[in-house]
Amino acid sequence: MATPLHPRTGLPVVAMVGGGQLSRMTHQAAIALGQSLRVLATDPAESAALVAADVVLGDHRDLAALRTVADGATVLTFDHEHVPTEHLRALEDDGHRVAPGPAALVHAQDKLVLRRALTEAGEPQPAWAEVRTGADVARFAATAGWPVVLKTPRGGYDGKGVFVVPDEEFAAELLAAHGTLLAEQRVEMVRELSAQVARSPFGQVSVWPVVETVQRDGVCNEVYAPAPGLSEEKATAAQELAVRIADRLGVVGMLAVELFETADGVLVNELAMRPHNSGHWTIEGARTSQFEQHLRAVLDYPLGSTAMTAPVVVMANVLGGAASAEDWTGPALDERVHHLLAHWPDVKLHWYGKGQRRGRKLGHVTALGDDLAEVRARAVAAARYLADGVVDPAFAFADEH
Amino acid sequence: MATPLHPRTGLPVVAMVGGGQLSRMTHQAAIALGQSLRVLATDPAESAALVAADVVLGDHRDLAALRTVADGATVLTFDHEHVPTEHLRALEDDGHRVAPGPAALVHAQDKLVLRRALTEAGEPQPAWAEVRTGADVARFAATAGWPVVLKTPRGGYDGKGVFVVPDEEFAAELLAAHGTLLAEQRVEMVRELSAQVARSPFGQVSVWPVVETVQRDGVCNEVYAPAPGLSEEKATAAQELAVRIADRLGVVGMLAVELFETADGVLVNELAMRPHNSGHWTIEGARTSQFEQHLRAVLDYPLGSTAMTAPVVVMANVLGGAASAEDWTGPALDERVHHLLAHWPDVKLHWYGKGQRRGRKLGHVTALGDDLAEVRARAVAAARYLADGVVDPAFAFADEH
Repeated sequence: MATPLHPRTGLPVVAMVGGGQLSRMTHQAAIALGQSLRVLATDPAESAALVAADVVLGDHRDLAALRTVADGATVLTFDHEHVPTEHLRALEDDGHRVAPGPAALVHAQDKLVLRRALTEAGEPQPAWAEVRTGADVARFAATAGWPVVLKTPRGGYDGKGVFVVPDEEFAAELLAAHGTLLAEQRVEMVRELSAQVARSPFGQVSVWPVVETVQRDGVCNEVYAPAPGLSEEKATAAQELAVRIADRLGVVGMLAVELFETADGVLVNELAMRPHNSGHWTIEGARTSQFEQHLRAVLDYPLGSTAMTAPVVVMANVLGGAASAEDWTGPALDERVHHLLAHWPDVKLHWYGKGQRRGRKLGHVTALGDDLAEVRARAVAAARYLADGVVDPAFAFADEH
Repeated sequence: MATPLHPRTGLPVVAMVGGGQLSRMTHQAAIALGQSLRVLATDPAESAALVAADVVLGDHRDLAALRTVADGATVLTFDHEHVPTEHLRALEDDGHRVAPGPAALVHAQDKLVLRRALTEAGEPQPAWAEVRTGADVARFAATAGWPVVLKTPRGGYDGKGVFVVPDEEFAAELLAAHGTLLAEQRVEMVRELSAQVARSPFGQVSVWPVVETVQRDGVCNEVYAPAPGLSEEKATAAQELAVRIADRLGVVGMLAVELFETADGVLVNELAMRPHNSGHWTIEGARTSQFEQHLRAVLDYPLGSTAMTAPVVVMANVLGGAASAEDWTGPALDERVHHLLAHWPDVKLHWYGKGQRRGRKLGHVTALGDDLAEVRARAVAAARYLADGVVDPAFAFADEH
């Protein structure tokens, strides 16, 4: 099969499955490269569908819809991990390029597959076991200790499908409801890190500085780049780990390796093979953003410089606040945006155009500077104001400097 | 009339007249602000129409088309100056917000109107006269000297509509063909500068560093930010001049004041009331780009920080090369993009998706760094390679450092 190019522009057409904010921001990057992202969205009101010129409506579990979006595209890629493996194989059999390919992607789709692969590769990870019964879990806990972390192998994200289990009885109930689960030792961690790498089919890789990610209730809230206080030795080791995994699994595109930092080193938590929340800071904070780099990688273009543009970059997510859109009594969104822009003229806003819902990722802000405490204060105060319309007293004066 | 907001997102809808690269890059900025630019394009293959979700096809001289694109939009703005003043007045009479308004915009549309206004304001500009006959020109030349520069008051851009006239006979011919013209003294200039400012209806203004623009055959080729060797005193004076003009004319949105630098100071050449080629460097080179700032200004949002992100930024245009698309024998565009990205991993590409035509602005590249000669070498070599597929020997080794 030839490599299709856009008939008018003579440049590639990347098709992305999923109409969320990752597609939305990838479209921004595509525009600079002379392209226009083709998006498979399930609803015209999805984040990317609101802004992209080339939108196919359909479900990512429907092979016919996948074929429609892949037809005439140079390569098919993803803003989530939920496309069935057999559909990806069928698309490859049709002659379509799929990046990352199904053999790599399954490691981001199935946590048990990932655990087995990392064990085989001898890479650091929490002690784990595949469990089917309460007795399996009790046996695992005999060495790993209670509580045990049980995870659904597939379908979880943002803390969903993760259970901290105190005893065999609760474990047995979960297993009855969910079937086979992944059991993991609960790690005594210092913090969470993320190592991002891009890899092209040619085998070129690029790494960004390792970042610290701060989760609340399993959802990423803040990202600090670079991870504060991480020694160069540890940072390099984490980057090398990410590159080894990308190479071994044959990843094409972006790979985020989510890590637990412990007293002894790092352990692999999970993988994402797409642009990832831990890399949003790269839009303003690095010479090449994860979105541009993902496009370059899946197209087998040479990769761009990942040099940082400032010593410290902080990204803070804007999560849907306490009130639903109907119950909201604070200032309207447009008014909050006004105040945000007035109060923090050097904080960069990214709003996804999604409906407000408690805990939902609605947007993010990025701040750059020299001093982590100062940069973090600005980013967090701006994000909280946008979420709730309330100025956090702890940060009320943080911007006055 | 109420201020319409997008029914789903609760955020503004900016409508932009014109589907060129300025609209295309404004759409990128709109996406970050949670918006989606509505574009009035004359052809679905226009630069912005290829990437925007909300495209109205129609002509900017057709009031019905203008009404269609303005309907439901928060504000109507422009990527060129060619909308007839009477149509803008009609839209305002309908209750639509138009930014910049017709009373301001006419100074960017009609060079005679601009010259009169600047004379009235006492701002520095070349000696000028309104001329109808060869004798008028000869009278003007008696003090201003030959050659005289004759300009069509309306419709010129990129050097079109500008004539360097050696004598009365040639002047008379031009006047017979064109009617009333603007005569200007040919200025002994050191170089050309551009001072960009944004102004909101609230009256807030923001300025970027004054840049040097390098034209070839009347077309902008390169922009150096900040203008090298310009004293702080002169730079501040040029910024203050731009702010005075923006205030006096009531500009809303971006204003580029194109300046001639002479031995004695600066003279105003012409104005653009929209994002301008001399400000493309701000996408990566300033905390807030001219495209984002234009949106913020026309929406009466607070303006963003214009701080530079690097000591030196150079933008180089990619102009259609010697061969037309049909005669092209060099590497195909996609191949040139590959090589560009491989050779200059830290040069940022902006490709507009337009068909190749000699001298046409097809894209631009931006390079950042510390040393003007080095940064310029990178940007210019990348732009020339992309235009012609030929590595300029003068720059062949410029990137090796």
